[in-house]
Amino acid sequence: MSDFLLETFARFGALTDKKMHEYLQNGEIPENLRETMAYSVFAGGKKLRSTLLLAVNEYCNGNIEDALPFAAAMEFIHTYSLIHDDLPAMDNDDYRRGKLTSHKKFGEDRAILAGDGLLSYAFEIMLENADSAGKISAAKSIAYAAGVKGMVAGQWVDVTNNGTVYGRETAEYIHDRKTAAMLIGAVKAGAQCACADCGTVKNFEEYARLLGMCFQITDDILDVEGDERELGKPIGSDESNGKTTFVSIYGLDGAKKLAKEYAEKAKGIFKDARFFAELADWMTERKN
Amino acid sequence: MSDFLLETFARFGALTDKKMHEYLQNGEIPENLRETMAYSVFAGGKKLRSTLLLAVNEYCNGNIEDALPFAAAMEFIHTYSLIHDDLPAMDNDDYRRGKLTSHKKFGEDRAILAGDGLLSYAFEIMLENADSAGKISAAKSIAYAAGVKGMVAGQWVDVTNNGTVYGRETAEYIHDRKTAAMLIGAVKAGAQCACADCGTVKNFEEYARLLGMCFQITDDILDVEGDERELGKPIGSDESNGKTTFVSIYGLDGAKKLAKEYAEKAKGIFKDARFFAELADWMTERKN
Repeated sequence: MSDFLLETFARFGALTDKKMHEYLQNGEIPENLRETMAYSVFAGGKKLRSTLLLAVNEYCNGNIEDALPFAAAMEFIHTYSLIHDDLPAMDNDDYRRGKLTSHKKFGEDRAILAGDGLLSYAFEIMLENADSAGKISAAKSIAYAAGVKGMVAGQWVDVTNNGTVYGRETAEYIHDRKTAAMLIGAVKAGAQCACADCGTVKNFEEYARLLGMCFQITDDILDVEGDERELGKPIGSDESNGKTTFVSIYGLDGAKKLAKEYAEKAKGIFKDARFFAELADWMTERKN
Repeated sequence: MSDFLLETFARFGALTDKKMHEYLQNGEIPENLRETMAYSVFAGGKKLRSTLLLAVNEYCNGNIEDALPFAAAMEFIHTYSLIHDDLPAMDNDDYRRGKLTSHKKFGEDRAILAGDGLLSYAFEIMLENADSAGKISAAKSIAYAAGVKGMVAGQWVDVTNNGTVYGRETAEYIHDRKTAAMLIGAVKAGAQCACADCGTVKNFEEYARLLGMCFQITDDILDVEGDERELGKPIGSDESNGKTTFVSIYGLDGAKKLAKEYAEKAKGIFKDARFFAELADWMTERKN
């Protein structure tokens, strides 16, 4: 990641962290519930979604104070989804980013409730701040992205197809909703908090869609390259695990070329904005 | 329940059911996710919360079309809380109202996601309908009631005190948030959808608080009387299970007297409104 990207992520990340700390210090919430939610919220992610939201808001000349509650809500929703995804009945993960997952640390009952709490709190925060037409639209965009037509739908189709070999259409359905939906929600909300015009919102939506494609293709590439490093498997042997990925469809080189093409398209939308151009490039170059 | 109460519950219940069916037929949601959510939504509850919301809205001369999305959202949130409460890591219940619980019927992963989906969808629906100051206030009231300062907090303190003997203060904290909070959220939302004045909202809040007390005291009484019928335990032996209840504090007769007192107080607030008076009486007389 370039110094400029790192600096932007650090700047917006610090502001979002501060806001989230503020919300998680609310004395009306039971103290150990706050601590359990905070454990996962501050587990060291990149904060891609909130940073996107704030960068778009800045590009649209929005007031950062208007956007920060929505950035915090976005991270709360992302964190709830990780806590629930990690549960024994779901992915059954003991660790995430080197730290014990919520249910391993606090028990399954508390992890479920911490997730429920973060999702509820995100909406409560957005509603408390829904004092303009733009901000109501922002809350709607995030609700749509996170809900039964977005992230929950993606997770649902992923879970219900677990263990089966599915085709490209299903793979894209899952990816669009599990990953791209929240990136789209983030950029739309950032623009809407700034009362941006519909054309700008649409451009950012297209940008986020392409960014999501790069994100997923690179994930698939990293999976294969990781397997090769770890297991010494031959290149492009990704089909062996029965999953349909961009690599299994296009091959390793084809997938890399495709990611570059999407990144170039994304960069074409916001030629004048360094952050969005560099972010698109980084999506195809990232190593984790 | 009097014929008048039964008729009112049936009338509002049918309208809420129709609205919920409509929402659960949205083709953007994966079909088996809709079916899984619908299974629990239409599992045969009284729909106390949505009926209260609609009755208050009618009393305040509101338009029922304005209030129905919020009534549906209220039931979706109540249903999500039951699905998650029933999970193996929580209360581990196999049956609810004679039907298999969601996780027994569909598996734990799908039950968790159906709950997440219902909670998310409730907020999405409320935001889609937040087209007046009153309705934004209604959504806020419901968010507060359901969230980390309300229902989730009550559930949290209940879960974290599981297996310990706790005092009256904790028992009241849990009850206020697990039960009363959502009744208060319902009446406030009903009044706010109708753009009622603050004085009316406050009166209904006090009414719902008293109704919640009657609800809980009667629950405690029914628990003891149920134990007596089933196990032949002597009257008032409720302390034996180590739980602090209104019966363990006031004795069986004392608790019954207290419930009557609260019901009379509640009836005093809305002397002119038959539904609210009869509902308060029913709360102390109900047998299930």
